[in-house]
Amino acid sequence: MTAKIRQDALDIFDAGLKAADPKLAVKKYVHRDGQKLLVNDKPYALEDYENLYVVGGGKAGASMASAVEELLGDRITEGLINVKYGHTEPLKKVKINEADHPLPDEAGLAGARQIIQLLEKTGERDLVICLISGGGSALLPLPADGISLNEKQDVTKKLLACGANINEMNAVRKHISKIKGGQLARAAAPATLITLMLSDVIGNYLDVIASGPTVPDSSTFRDAKEIIERYQIWNDILDTVKEHILKGVNGEIPETPKEGDEIFFKTQNVVIGSNIQALLAAEEKANSLGYHSLVLSSFIEGETKDVARVHAAIAKEILQTGNPVKPPACVISGGETTVTIRGDGKGGRNQEFVLAAALDIAGLHSVVILSGGTDGTDGPTDAAGAICDGRTVERASEQGLNARQHLSNNDAYPFFKKLDDLLMTGPTNTNVIDLRLVLVDQT
Amino acid sequence: MTAKIRQDALDIFDAGLKAADPKLAVKKYVHRDGQKLLVNDKPYALEDYENLYVVGGGKAGASMASAVEELLGDRITEGLINVKYGHTEPLKKVKINEADHPLPDEAGLAGARQIIQLLEKTGERDLVICLISGGGSALLPLPADGISLNEKQDVTKKLLACGANINEMNAVRKHISKIKGGQLARAAAPATLITLMLSDVIGNYLDVIASGPTVPDSSTFRDAKEIIERYQIWNDILDTVKEHILKGVNGEIPETPKEGDEIFFKTQNVVIGSNIQALLAAEEKANSLGYHSLVLSSFIEGETKDVARVHAAIAKEILQTGNPVKPPACVISGGETTVTIRGDGKGGRNQEFVLAAALDIAGLHSVVILSGGTDGTDGPTDAAGAICDGRTVERASEQGLNARQHLSNNDAYPFFKKLDDLLMTGPTNTNVIDLRLVLVDQT
Repeated sequence: MTAKIRQDALDIFDAGLKAADPKLAVKKYVHRDGQKLLVNDKPYALEDYENLYVVGGGKAGASMASAVEELLGDRITEGLINVKYGHTEPLKKVKINEADHPLPDEAGLAGARQIIQLLEKTGERDLVICLISGGGSALLPLPADGISLNEKQDVTKKLLACGANINEMNAVRKHISKIKGGQLARAAAPATLITLMLSDVIGNYLDVIASGPTVPDSSTFRDAKEIIERYQIWNDILDTVKEHILKGVNGEIPETPKEGDEIFFKTQNVVIGSNIQALLAAEEKANSLGYHSLVLSSFIEGETKDVARVHAAIAKEILQTGNPVKPPACVISGGETTVTIRGDGKGGRNQEFVLAAALDIAGLHSVVILSGGTDGTDGPTDAAGAICDGRTVERASEQGLNARQHLSNNDAYPFFKKLDDLLMTGPTNTNVIDLRLVLVDQT
Repeated sequence: MTAKIRQDALDIFDAGLKAADPKLAVKKYVHRDGQKLLVNDKPYALEDYENLYVVGGGKAGASMASAVEELLGDRITEGLINVKYGHTEPLKKVKINEADHPLPDEAGLAGARQIIQLLEKTGERDLVICLISGGGSALLPLPADGISLNEKQDVTKKLLACGANINEMNAVRKHISKIKGGQLARAAAPATLITLMLSDVIGNYLDVIASGPTVPDSSTFRDAKEIIERYQIWNDILDTVKEHILKGVNGEIPETPKEGDEIFFKTQNVVIGSNIQALLAAEEKANSLGYHSLVLSSFIEGETKDVARVHAAIAKEILQTGNPVKPPACVISGGETTVTIRGDGKGGRNQEFVLAAALDIAGLHSVVILSGGTDGTDGPTDAAGAICDGRTVERASEQGLNARQHLSNNDAYPFFKKLDDLLMTGPTNTNVIDLRLVLVDQT
C-alpha cells in the first residue's frame, strides 16, 4: 500500500518538475505558425521585423535559448546569454557566455556589457527576445558608470549585514546598476521586446525576478538614499556609489524607467514557469491518479522544521476527520523555507523538511511526505530532496539511525542516503523553488 | 470592508467558543426524556439505577455539573468534583472541592481520595457520571499506596528534565497513581459509568485526556520501568517509587486495567467538546456568513511565528490564485503552538501568532487574521488573543509601535492593547485549546 503511495508521490513530483523544464516551458507559451509568432496568445507578425536578437541571463539560459532556436532559428540575427559555469549546451545562433554565480565575476560583467551594447544598436523594426531565469541577477552584473563591480558589491554586503529586506536591497541595487530596474528594456527600445521568465521568486513579482531588467521600477534614487541612511551606513559606503546616487537624487542622471514610460509600450513580460505553475501541474497529476488535491500555497516561508510540523498536522487531520480534504488526499505546497543551522551535519532545506515531518508522522502507515528542490540540488548536496512515510523513523532505528539526533544536527542527507530515500534527479539547470507533497490514503 | 471582515472573524471565533462552553456541550450530548437518558444517542433507563453519583475533575467541572444537575438533579444521590481555585459556581447536589493547578496540592489529594472512596461503595445498580475537563490530571492527584504526592512529582520532574515525551510521562504516571490509566473506572465498577470529557489534548486521545482515568491503559509496569531506565534515572528516583514499580513488575500488585477488561463492559466515554468540534462550529458559522471555508487541522504544533508565516502564506495564495479556496475565504486551524522565549515582553502564543502574521500580510487590505485561546487567557495575560489585518503594521507604526521589535521581544500584548486589537473574552473556565482564523475577501 505504502509502496503505491510512494510511487504516486514520485510521479506527482516529476509532473511538477516538468513544469519547470526550460524547453517545455518556452514551448508552452511560444508558438509559431509560419510568419506568425504567438507569445502567451499575443500575436507578432515576423515579417514586420528586420532583426531578431536573443539576450538574457540565468542558469536555464542555454536551454531556453535552445527552444527559441528550434522555433525561430532561421530568423535569429544574433544573441548572447550569460549562464552559470557548466550550464551550457550546443547552440547554433545564440552565443553562450559562462560566468560565476552566486557572486558575479568579470566574465559576467563582460557579457552583460556586450548585451547592452548589442541592444543599443537595435532599431524600431527589430525584435528582442530576453530570456531570464534563476540566478539572472548575479549573472547580469553591470554597475552604473563610474562604479566597479567590487564597489557595487560592497554596498549590498553592508545592507545585508544590517538586515535590509529584499525590497530595500533591490531599490538600492537598481539605482547603482545599468541593467536592472527596467534599464535593459531602455537599452532595447525602440525595438519590440518580449521577455520570457522562469521565476525563482516567491510570488513571481516581475520587478523582483532578476531585479526586473525589463520591468518598470517603482523605486527612486531618493528611496535608495533613504534606505542607506535608514541603516546608518551612508558614511560607510564608497564615494563612487555615494556620488552616483546623489547625482540621481539631483536629477543629473536619469531615473530608472517608470510605469507608463513609453519604453514599455512595446514590451511583453511572460512568466513561463514558476512555483505555482509547478504546484498546479502536480495537482493535475495527483487528480489524474485519483487523489483529492489541495494546493496550499506557493508563498510558504519560515523555519523548515516548524513548517514541516504544520504539514504533518494536516496529514493527521486528514486521517482523523477528512479535513481539509478527504483521503486519498494530496496536499501540495511550494515556496522556500529556511534552516537555522544548529548542527554541523549535511543536508538541505528539503531533506530537513522531510526528516522533521517523518518524526511527526511516525506510525501513521498511510501517509507519505516528499519535498524536493526543482533545481535538483538541495543545499550543498547532490540530492533534490527526500521522501518519507509512517515507517521511516522505525526503519531508520532498525539501522541504528536516530531521526531526532540527525534533525538536531541538520544532518538529513546521510540519514536518507542510508535509507535510500533521497530524491536523485541530478541538476536540472532550472529553478522554480521547492515542491512539497503530503499524500494520505484511506487506512 | 475590512471592518466587516473583522466583525465576521469575531463572530466566527465566538461560534467556536460556544462549542467549548461546558453547559452547552453537556446539553448537546446528554438528553433526558422522563426516565430515559440519552448520552450521545446511547439510551439508559433511569429506573434501572438505585443511585446516581457525579464525580470528576477539571477546570470546567462546576459548569459541567451544573448542566448535569439541570438534567438529573432529582436523581443525583451525591457527588464530588475537584476544580481549580475560583472555578466554582453554586450547585444543589454535587460538592465542589477547590484545589491547585497546575501543581497538585493536598486539597486536590483529599478530594481525589474521597472520590475513590465514594466510587468504591457503588454497586451494580448504580450509575456514575464522571466529568473530565482541562487540568483534570493535576486536579485528580492520587498517588499509589505508599507513595506521597511529593515523591510522585519527583519522578515526573526528573523525567521531564530528561526530555521524556508525553506518552512516556503518562506510562510512568499511570503506574504510580491510583486513579489514572483506567483506575477510576476500576473503582466505579461494577456500577455503570458514563464519562463526559472536554478535551484539551491535541488529537483527543482518550487515554491521554486527564491521563485517561476511565479508559483502558495500553502501558505496563514493565514499560514504566524501562522508560525510567532508558533515561538512566532509575538510581536517582525515590525508593518508595522504585519499590512500587518493582512490585508491579513482579505481579504483586495489579496492573492498570486493559482493553477488554470486564471493568469496561459498562462504561461509555464521550468527548463532548474538543478542538476539532470548535473548528467545525467555526466553519459552520463562516459558511453561514458566505465564506468558502477550510478546516486546515486541529493538530497544529510548532514554533508560533513560523506557524503564523504558513497561515499568512495561505492568505497570499488565496489572494493571488484562489488556492486552496476561493475568496471570500475562511481558513480555520487549531491545536497549540509553542513560543521560544527570546525577549522579556508580555504576551501569549495567540497574540504572538497574530503579530507575526501581521508582518507578513502588511499591505494586503482584504486579509484578516485572528488567533485566540478558548480558555480566554492567552499566556500570562487577561486577553484571549488578538486580531490583525493588512493595515495593522502601518497603524502601529503611526502610533510609534514597531511590530518587528515587539515580535522579537515576545511583547505582543502591549502592541495589540495600544491598537485596541486584543480579544477580551474574560476567563471561560473551559479549554479546547486554540482557534485561528484567516479571512480573505475579494479585492
